[in-house]
Amino acid sequence: MHYSYALGLIPTIELLRIKPTKAIKVLFKEQSDNYLETEKIKHLCRKNRIKFEYNDRWVNKISHKKNTYAVGIFEKYQAELERNNNHIVLINPSDMGNLGTVIRSMVAFNFKDLALLTPATDIFDPKVVSTTTGALFKINFKHYETFAEYSEEFEFHNLYFFTMDGEKKVKSAKFSKPYSLIFGNESKGIDKDLLILGNTVRIPHSENIESLNLAVSASIGMFEASH
Amino acid sequence: MHYSYALGLIPTIELLRIKPTKAIKVLFKEQSDNYLETEKIKHLCRKNRIKFEYNDRWVNKISHKKNTYAVGIFEKYQAELERNNNHIVLINPSDMGNLGTVIRSMVAFNFKDLALLTPATDIFDPKVVSTTTGALFKINFKHYETFAEYSEEFEFHNLYFFTMDGEKKVKSAKFSKPYSLIFGNESKGIDKDLLILGNTVRIPHSENIESLNLAVSASIGMFEASH
Repeated sequence: MHYSYALGLIPTIELLRIKPTKAIKVLFKEQSDNYLETEKIKHLCRKNRIKFEYNDRWVNKISHKKNTYAVGIFEKYQAELERNNNHIVLINPSDMGNLGTVIRSMVAFNFKDLALLTPATDIFDPKVVSTTTGALFKINFKHYETFAEYSEEFEFHNLYFFTMDGEKKVKSAKFSKPYSLIFGNESKGIDKDLLILGNTVRIPHSENIESLNLAVSASIGMFEASH
Repeated sequence: MHYSYALGLIPTIELLRIKPTKAIKVLFKEQSDNYLETEKIKHLCRKNRIKFEYNDRWVNKISHKKNTYAVGIFEKYQAELERNNNHIVLINPSDMGNLGTVIRSMVAFNFKDLALLTPATDIFDPKVVSTTTGALFKINFKHYETFAEYSEEFEFHNLYFFTMDGEKKVKSAKFSKPYSLIFGNESKGIDKDLLILGNTVRIPHSENIESLNLAVSASIGMFEASH
């Protein structure tokens, strides 16, 4: 499939505001009770010459949620990462909720560039798009097959691997720009062989839990590195 | 329903280790490939005189996930919060994933006491129990109908309300023990009328996002208050 969906009024507005060239069409449900947001979408559609129509049956088919009043259909895309920005790197993320939440936190803490190592959960799955609450359209993301492919493209980035036995505690680590904050898969973590390539950082936590949730780790990492 | 389910080998082990008196029965699926964990569960069952049986059909019926090899059936319960501990208070949490992730982070950052203001999503829903990865059994939690009911019971707790326009940034706030970190509902936040009762704290973030995810806010709040 070459297209995906932004579900709901706010994600659709964000799609039309930020990535209008990727938008294909907007579908509305008749009963939308939010007049202002509906009108805003129509205005953005007209401005960008994007078609919209009322089609309850299709909205219900695409979304399954009763309170979805708009669906923005858009073409899938990716974008080159900015060479001078700090990056987030997720190695084989497998949970859609986590990926969406990481993207929402990226925008919250001013990170704009996301590298995804494949295999990874589908960033265009409507569940991911919804969880980002529109933040997906505000970042650059690109897929890489191996870590080497990523690190060769950005050889001047300082690498910070977040692992349970990382050498520095996150609060005492110095993050030298441009940096990459790297987080492993939910169950497997990061392949030990990679750690030699950079610094290792840990978020201290009690031994009563095996690990932190991935989105929580990444959000704390981003917050600490940027504040 | 007076009982709920711990889905999977690890959550079932945690149930039997920490709350054996609440465990009613364990069901296994034949194909479990994890011999050690399966034997550990059987050992804990024998020790605590809890029945177990192989019953693929029921495990599949309860869990829907193919890779669930054990189900621990347990009696629902709640517990008084400790008067001298720091508390987490969630006002009307509505998302099961968020609630489970908050509980996992609580155990990670050594918080043992959770107050839930109703209406709240069901803490015993198997999805919540799974998301905590067994952490649910390591905390005390109690439901309250109003904030007044909670605050009257713990009148010496210092209250810290996390809001977007909180007075202190989380990194410069001083958290005086015993304290309560209070987080609002995912979409409605915290009722403004309550804020007069304590301190207000914010987690600074960009204006490109409306708010942080609840589990992310709570985890950052707990990490900062305790480190």
